[in-house]
Amino acid sequence: MNEGTPATPILLRPIGVVRAPFKGSDEVPKGLGARHEEEGTLEILPEFAPGLADIEGFSHLYVLWIFDRAGSCELLGKNPTDGLVHGVFATRSPKRPNPLALTVVELLGRDGATLRVRGVDMLDGSPIVDLKPYLSSVPPEKLRRGWLDVAEGKLKAAGSSGS
Amino acid sequence: MNEGTPATPILLRPIGVVRAPFKGSDEVPKGLGARHEEEGTLEILPEFAPGLADIEGFSHLYVLWIFDRAGSCELLGKNPTDGLVHGVFATRSPKRPNPLALTVVELLGRDGATLRVRGVDMLDGSPIVDLKPYLSSVPPEKLRRGWLDVAEGKLKAAGSSGS
Repeated sequence: MNEGTPATPILLRPIGVVRAPFKGSDEVPKGLGARHEEEGTLEILPEFAPGLADIEGFSHLYVLWIFDRAGSCELLGKNPTDGLVHGVFATRSPKRPNPLALTVVELLGRDGATLRVRGVDMLDGSPIVDLKPYLSSVPPEKLRRGWLDVAEGKLKAAGSSGS
Repeated sequence: MNEGTPATPILLRPIGVVRAPFKGSDEVPKGLGARHEEEGTLEILPEFAPGLADIEGFSHLYVLWIFDRAGSCELLGKNPTDGLVHGVFATRSPKRPNPLALTVVELLGRDGATLRVRGVDMLDGSPIVDLKPYLSSVPPEKLRRGWLDVAEGKLKAAGSSGS
Protein backbone atom coordinates (compact mmCIF):
# COMPACT_ATOMS: atom_id res chain seq x y z
CA MET A 1 0.00 0.00 0.00
CA ASN A 2 1.28 3.46 -0.78
CA GLU A 3 2.53 5.60 2.03
CA GLY A 4 -0.16 8.06 1.02
CA THR A 5 -2.93 5.55 1.75
CA PRO A 6 -3.36 5.16 5.48
CA ALA A 7 -5.25 2.04 6.52
CA THR A 8 -8.21 3.94 7.96
CA PRO A 9 -10.67 1.63 9.74
CA ILE A 10 -14.21 1.55 8.33
CA LEU A 11 -17.25 1.48 10.60
CA LEU A 12 -20.35 -0.41 9.44
CA ARG A 13 -23.79 -0.27 11.01
CA PRO A 14 -26.36 -3.07 10.60
CA ILE A 15 -29.26 -2.21 8.29
CA GLY A 16 -31.26 -5.22 9.44
CA VAL A 17 -31.16 -8.80 10.61
CA VAL A 18 -31.54 -12.26 9.07
CA ARG A 19 -34.24 -14.64 10.27
CA ALA A 20 -33.24 -18.16 9.29
CA PRO A 21 -33.89 -21.69 10.55
CA PHE A 22 -30.25 -22.16 11.58
CA LYS A 23 -29.40 -21.55 15.24
CA GLY A 24 -25.88 -23.01 15.16
CA SER A 25 -23.22 -23.26 12.45
CA ASP A 26 -23.39 -27.08 12.56
CA GLU A 27 -26.96 -26.82 11.19
CA VAL A 28 -25.93 -24.98 8.00
CA PRO A 29 -25.32 -27.35 5.05
CA LYS A 30 -21.60 -27.27 4.11
CA GLY A 31 -19.17 -28.91 1.78
CA LEU A 32 -19.49 -30.51 -1.62
CA GLY A 33 -22.97 -30.72 -2.99
CA ALA A 34 -24.46 -28.67 -0.14
CA ARG A 35 -27.76 -27.15 -1.25
CA HIS A 36 -29.11 -23.95 0.25
CA GLU A 37 -32.83 -24.11 -0.43
CA GLU A 38 -34.02 -22.98 2.99
CA GLU A 39 -36.29 -19.98 3.23
CA GLY A 40 -35.84 -17.09 5.61
CA THR A 41 -36.50 -13.38 5.93
CA LEU A 42 -34.39 -10.27 5.78
CA GLU A 43 -35.80 -7.80 8.29
CA ILE A 44 -34.64 -4.34 7.30
CA LEU A 45 -34.73 -1.57 9.91
CA PRO A 46 -37.56 0.94 9.29
CA GLU A 47 -35.14 3.84 8.82
CA PHE A 48 -33.64 2.07 5.76
CA ALA A 49 -36.94 0.85 4.24
CA PRO A 50 -37.12 3.63 1.60
CA GLY A 51 -33.95 2.15 0.09
CA LEU A 52 -35.92 -1.01 -0.83
CA ALA A 53 -37.97 0.81 -3.51
CA ASP A 54 -38.08 -1.23 -6.76
CA ILE A 55 -36.23 -4.19 -5.25
CA GLU A 56 -39.21 -6.47 -6.04
CA GLY A 57 -38.24 -6.44 -9.71
CA PHE A 58 -35.10 -8.45 -9.09
CA SER A 59 -35.23 -12.23 -8.83
CA HIS A 60 -31.95 -12.54 -6.93
CA LEU A 61 -30.08 -10.36 -4.45
CA TYR A 62 -26.63 -10.21 -2.95
CA VAL A 63 -26.86 -10.09 0.82
CA LEU A 64 -23.78 -8.74 2.58
CA TRP A 65 -23.89 -9.78 6.21
CA ILE A 66 -21.63 -10.28 9.19
CA PHE A 67 -20.19 -13.52 10.57
CA ASP A 68 -20.89 -12.34 14.13
CA ARG A 69 -20.11 -15.70 15.77
CA ALA A 70 -17.06 -16.74 13.74
CA GLY A 71 -14.20 -16.67 16.21
CA SER A 72 -10.77 -15.34 15.40
CA CYS A 73 -9.24 -15.09 11.95
CA GLU A 74 -7.28 -17.99 10.43
CA LEU A 75 -5.31 -16.95 7.33
CA LEU A 76 -4.61 -20.62 6.63
CA GLY A 77 -7.15 -23.19 7.71
CA LYS A 78 -8.27 -26.74 7.03
CA ASN A 79 -11.43 -26.66 4.92
CA PRO A 80 -14.30 -29.01 5.82
CA THR A 81 -14.98 -29.59 2.11
CA ASP A 82 -11.77 -31.46 1.28
CA GLY A 83 -9.97 -31.60 4.63
CA LEU A 84 -7.00 -29.70 3.16
CA VAL A 85 -5.41 -26.39 4.13
CA HIS A 86 -6.19 -23.35 1.94
CA GLY A 87 -5.72 -19.61 2.25
CA VAL A 88 -8.79 -17.91 3.67
CA PHE A 89 -9.27 -15.77 0.53
CA ALA A 90 -9.57 -18.98 -1.53
CA THR A 91 -12.44 -20.16 0.71
CA ARG A 92 -15.70 -18.97 2.22
CA SER A 93 -14.49 -19.68 5.77
CA PRO A 94 -16.07 -17.34 8.34
CA LYS A 95 -12.69 -16.90 10.09
CA ARG A 96 -11.63 -13.96 7.90
CA PRO A 97 -9.66 -10.75 8.60
CA ASN A 98 -12.97 -8.91 8.19
CA PRO A 99 -16.04 -11.00 9.10
CA LEU A 100 -17.88 -10.14 5.86
CA ALA A 101 -20.22 -12.74 4.39
CA LEU A 102 -21.83 -12.78 0.96
CA THR A 103 -24.86 -14.84 -0.05
CA VAL A 104 -26.93 -14.84 -3.24
CA VAL A 105 -30.60 -15.37 -2.38
CA GLU A 106 -33.74 -15.65 -4.47
CA LEU A 107 -36.25 -12.91 -3.62
CA LEU A 108 -39.66 -14.51 -3.09
CA GLY A 109 -41.61 -11.49 -1.92
CA ARG A 110 -41.68 -8.31 0.10
CA ASP A 111 -43.90 -7.27 2.99
CA GLY A 112 -43.00 -3.70 3.94
CA ALA A 113 -39.43 -3.76 5.17
CA THR A 114 -39.29 -7.57 5.32
CA LEU A 115 -38.03 -9.60 2.37
CA ARG A 116 -38.88 -13.29 2.03
CA VAL A 117 -35.97 -15.12 0.43
CA ARG A 118 -34.84 -18.62 -0.54
CA GLY A 119 -31.30 -19.89 -0.26
CA VAL A 120 -30.28 -18.71 3.20
CA ASP A 121 -27.07 -20.07 4.70
CA MET A 122 -26.91 -17.52 7.51
CA LEU A 123 -27.30 -18.14 11.21
CA ASP A 124 -30.49 -16.72 12.65
CA GLY A 125 -29.90 -13.20 13.92
CA SER A 126 -26.94 -12.38 11.66
CA PRO A 127 -26.58 -8.63 11.02
CA ILE A 128 -27.17 -7.45 7.44
CA VAL A 129 -24.97 -4.59 6.21
CA ASP A 130 -26.01 -4.25 2.55
CA LEU A 131 -28.28 -5.55 -0.21
CA LYS A 132 -27.47 -5.28 -3.90
CA PRO A 133 -29.24 -6.48 -7.04
CA TYR A 134 -27.69 -9.59 -8.55
CA LEU A 135 -27.16 -8.56 -12.15
CA SER A 136 -24.97 -10.86 -14.13
CA SER A 137 -22.83 -13.90 -14.07
CA VAL A 138 -19.62 -15.28 -15.44
CA PRO A 139 -20.24 -17.68 -18.36
CA PRO A 140 -19.77 -21.26 -17.09
CA GLU A 141 -17.19 -22.02 -19.78
CA LYS A 142 -14.99 -19.20 -18.45
CA LEU A 143 -15.15 -20.27 -14.80
CA ARG A 144 -12.38 -22.21 -13.01
CA ARG A 145 -12.90 -23.10 -9.36
CA GLY A 146 -9.44 -24.18 -8.20
CA TRP A 147 -9.20 -26.65 -5.34
CA LEU A 148 -12.98 -27.05 -5.29
CA ASP A 149 -12.98 -28.50 -8.82
CA VAL A 150 -10.27 -30.90 -7.69
CA ALA A 151 -12.30 -31.98 -4.65
CA GLU A 152 -15.46 -32.42 -6.72
CA GLY A 153 -13.54 -34.41 -9.34
CA LYS A 154 -12.29 -36.78 -6.64
CA LEU A 155 -15.79 -37.18 -5.25
CA LYS A 156 -17.19 -38.02 -8.68
CA ALA A 157 -14.36 -40.47 -9.41
CA ALA A 158 -15.01 -42.21 -6.07
CA GLY A 159 -18.72 -42.36 -6.86
CA SER A 160 -18.28 -43.81 -10.34
CA SER A 161 -15.92 -46.49 -9.05
CA GLY A 162 -18.63 -47.58 -6.64
CA SER A 163 -16.83 -46.69 -3.41
CA MET B 1 -34.83 -6.31 14.66
CA ASN B 2 -35.45 -8.15 17.91
CA GLU B 3 -34.89 -6.26 21.13
CA GLY B 4 -32.27 -8.89 21.93
CA THR B 5 -30.21 -7.92 18.87
CA PRO B 6 -28.46 -4.63 19.53
CA ALA B 7 -27.21 -2.87 16.40
CA THR B 8 -23.55 -3.23 17.29
CA PRO B 9 -21.26 -1.36 14.88
CA ILE B 10 -18.72 -3.46 12.98
CA LEU B 11 -15.18 -2.24 12.44
CA LEU B 12 -13.39 -3.24 9.23
CA ARG B 13 -9.70 -2.85 8.46
CA PRO B 14 -8.33 -2.66 4.92
CA ILE B 15 -6.45 -5.78 3.79
CA GLY B 16 -5.04 -4.00 0.76
CA VAL B 17 -5.58 -1.40 -1.92
CA VAL B 18 -6.75 -1.34 -5.55
CA ARG B 19 -4.50 0.04 -8.29
CA ALA B 20 -6.69 0.97 -11.25
CA PRO B 21 -6.53 3.42 -14.15
CA PHE B 22 -9.46 5.47 -12.81
CA LYS B 23 -8.61 8.56 -10.78
CA GLY B 24 -12.11 10.07 -10.67
CA SER B 25 -15.59 8.51 -10.69
CA ASP B 26 -16.38 10.23 -14.01
CA GLU B 27 -13.72 8.01 -15.62
CA VAL B 28 -15.42 4.73 -14.65
CA PRO B 29 -17.74 3.38 -17.39
CA LYS B 30 -21.36 3.50 -16.14
CA GLY B 31 -24.86 2.82 -17.33
CA LEU B 32 -26.33 0.50 -19.92
CA GLY B 33 -23.85 -1.49 -21.90
CA ALA B 34 -20.88 -0.30 -19.82
CA ARG B 35 -18.00 -2.77 -20.15
CA HIS B 36 -15.41 -3.23 -17.47
CA GLU B 37 -12.43 -4.71 -19.27
CA GLU B 38 -9.74 -2.56 -17.69
CA GLU B 39 -6.87 -4.25 -15.92
CA GLY B 40 -5.56 -3.33 -12.50
CA THR B 41 -3.91 -4.84 -9.46
CA LEU B 42 -5.02 -5.78 -5.99
CA GLU B 43 -2.14 -5.06 -3.62
CA ILE B 44 -2.66 -7.12 -0.49
CA LEU B 45 -0.83 -6.08 2.69
CA PRO B 46 2.07 -8.43 3.54
CA GLU B 47 0.50 -9.47 6.84
CA PHE B 48 -2.48 -10.96 4.96
CA ALA B 49 -0.49 -12.59 2.12
CA PRO B 50 -0.66 -16.13 3.62
CA GLY B 51 -4.43 -15.98 3.11
CA LEU B 52 -3.87 -15.90 -0.68
CA ALA B 53 -2.66 -19.53 -0.77
CA ASP B 54 -4.38 -21.48 -3.58
CA ILE B 55 -6.17 -18.41 -4.94
CA GLU B 56 -4.45 -18.89 -8.33
CA GLY B 57 -6.74 -21.82 -9.09
CA PHE B 58 -9.79 -19.57 -9.38
CA SER B 59 -10.54 -17.75 -12.61
CA HIS B 60 -12.77 -15.12 -10.98
CA LEU B 61 -12.88 -13.45 -7.58
CA TYR B 62 -15.29 -11.33 -5.62
CA VAL B 63 -13.56 -8.19 -4.42
CA LEU B 64 -15.23 -6.46 -1.48
CA TRP B 65 -13.98 -2.90 -1.28
CA ILE B 66 -14.92 0.48 0.11
CA PHE B 67 -16.47 3.44 -1.69
CA ASP B 68 -14.16 5.80 0.19
CA ARG B 69 -15.07 8.89 -1.90
CA ALA B 70 -18.82 8.37 -2.22
CA GLY B 71 -20.35 11.22 -0.26
CA SER B 72 -23.36 10.84 1.99
CA CYS B 73 -26.01 8.15 1.72
CA GLU B 74 -29.08 8.61 -0.47
CA LEU B 75 -31.76 5.98 0.23
CA LEU B 76 -33.62 7.16 -2.88
CA GLY B 77 -31.63 8.55 -5.77
CA LYS B 78 -31.83 9.22 -9.48
CA ASN B 79 -29.84 6.56 -11.32
CA PRO B 80 -27.57 7.60 -14.20
CA THR B 81 -28.58 4.46 -16.15
CA ASP B 82 -32.24 5.39 -16.76
CA GLY B 83 -32.55 8.81 -15.11
CA LEU B 84 -35.25 7.48 -12.76
CA VAL B 85 -35.40 7.30 -8.97
CA HIS B 86 -34.78 3.89 -7.35
CA GLY B 87 -34.11 2.65 -3.83
CA VAL B 88 -30.40 2.35 -3.13
CA PHE B 89 -30.67 -1.41 -2.46
CA ALA B 90 -32.04 -1.88 -6.00
CA THR B 91 -28.94 -0.18 -7.44
CA ARG B 92 -25.15 -0.23 -7.24
CA SER B 93 -25.00 3.44 -6.25
CA PRO B 94 -21.99 4.24 -4.05
CA LYS B 95 -24.17 6.44 -1.79
CA ARG B 96 -25.19 3.55 0.50
CA PRO B 97 -25.82 3.28 4.25
CA ASN B 98 -22.58 1.26 4.40
CA PRO B 99 -20.06 2.16 1.68
CA LEU B 100 -19.49 -1.49 0.66
CA ALA B 101 -18.70 -2.24 -2.96
CA LEU B 102 -18.64 -5.61 -4.71
CA THR B 103 -16.90 -6.36 -8.00
CA VAL B 104 -16.34 -9.65 -9.83
CA VAL B 105 -12.91 -9.62 -11.46
CA GLU B 106 -11.03 -12.12 -13.59
CA LEU B 107 -7.78 -13.22 -11.97
CA LEU B 108 -4.96 -12.96 -14.53
CA GLY B 109 -2.02 -13.76 -12.32
CA ARG B 110 -0.31 -13.41 -8.98
CA ASP B 111 3.04 -11.96 -8.04
CA GLY B 112 3.55 -12.44 -4.31
CA ALA B 113 0.87 -10.43 -2.55
CA THR B 114 -0.18 -8.61 -5.73
CA LEU B 115 -2.99 -9.96 -7.92
CA ARG B 116 -3.32 -8.87 -11.55
CA VAL B 117 -7.00 -8.70 -12.48
CA ARG B 118 -9.28 -7.73 -15.36
CA GLY B 119 -12.62 -6.01 -14.98
CA VAL B 120 -11.85 -3.28 -12.46
CA ASP B 121 -14.43 -0.57 -11.87
CA MET B 122 -12.80 0.80 -8.75
CA LEU B 123 -11.16 4.16 -8.27
CA ASP B 124 -7.40 3.95 -7.86
CA GLY B 125 -6.53 3.67 -4.18
CA SER B 126 -9.81 2.14 -3.03
CA PRO B 127 -9.40 0.06 0.15
CA ILE B 128 -10.00 -3.70 -0.18
CA VAL B 129 -11.67 -5.43 2.77
CA ASP B 130 -12.13 -9.01 1.50
CA LEU B 131 -11.54 -11.41 -1.38
CA LYS B 132 -13.65 -14.51 -2.00
CA PRO B 133 -13.64 -17.15 -4.72
CA TYR B 134 -16.40 -16.71 -7.27
CA LEU B 135 -18.02 -20.12 -7.33
CA SER B 136 -21.32 -20.27 -9.06
CA SER B 137 -23.96 -18.32 -10.85
CA VAL B 138 -27.70 -18.09 -11.21
CA PRO B 139 -28.94 -19.71 -14.44
CA PRO B 140 -29.79 -16.94 -16.95
CA GLU B 141 -33.32 -18.26 -17.43
CA LYS B 142 -34.01 -17.76 -13.71
CA LEU B 143 -32.70 -14.21 -13.54
CA ARG B 144 -34.92 -11.11 -13.54
CA ARG B 145 -33.27 -7.71 -13.35
CA GLY B 146 -36.15 -5.34 -12.57
CA TRP B 147 -35.86 -1.74 -13.68
CA LEU B 148 -32.62 -2.51 -15.50
CA ASP B 149 -34.40 -4.92 -17.87
CA VAL B 150 -36.97 -2.19 -18.51
CA ALA B 151 -34.25 0.37 -19.27
CA GLU B 152 -32.41 -2.04 -21.57
CA GLY B 153 -35.66 -2.92 -23.34
CA LYS B 154 -36.31 0.77 -24.03
CA LEU B 155 -32.78 1.21 -25.34
CA LYS B 156 -33.14 -1.77 -27.70
CA ALA B 157 -36.55 -0.58 -28.93
CA ALA B 158 -35.12 2.88 -29.64
CA GLY B 159 -32.19 1.31 -31.46
CA SER B 160 -34.32 -0.98 -33.64
CA SER B 161 -36.60 1.89 -34.67
CA GLY B 162 -33.56 3.75 -35.93
CA SER B 163 -33.70 6.61 -33.41
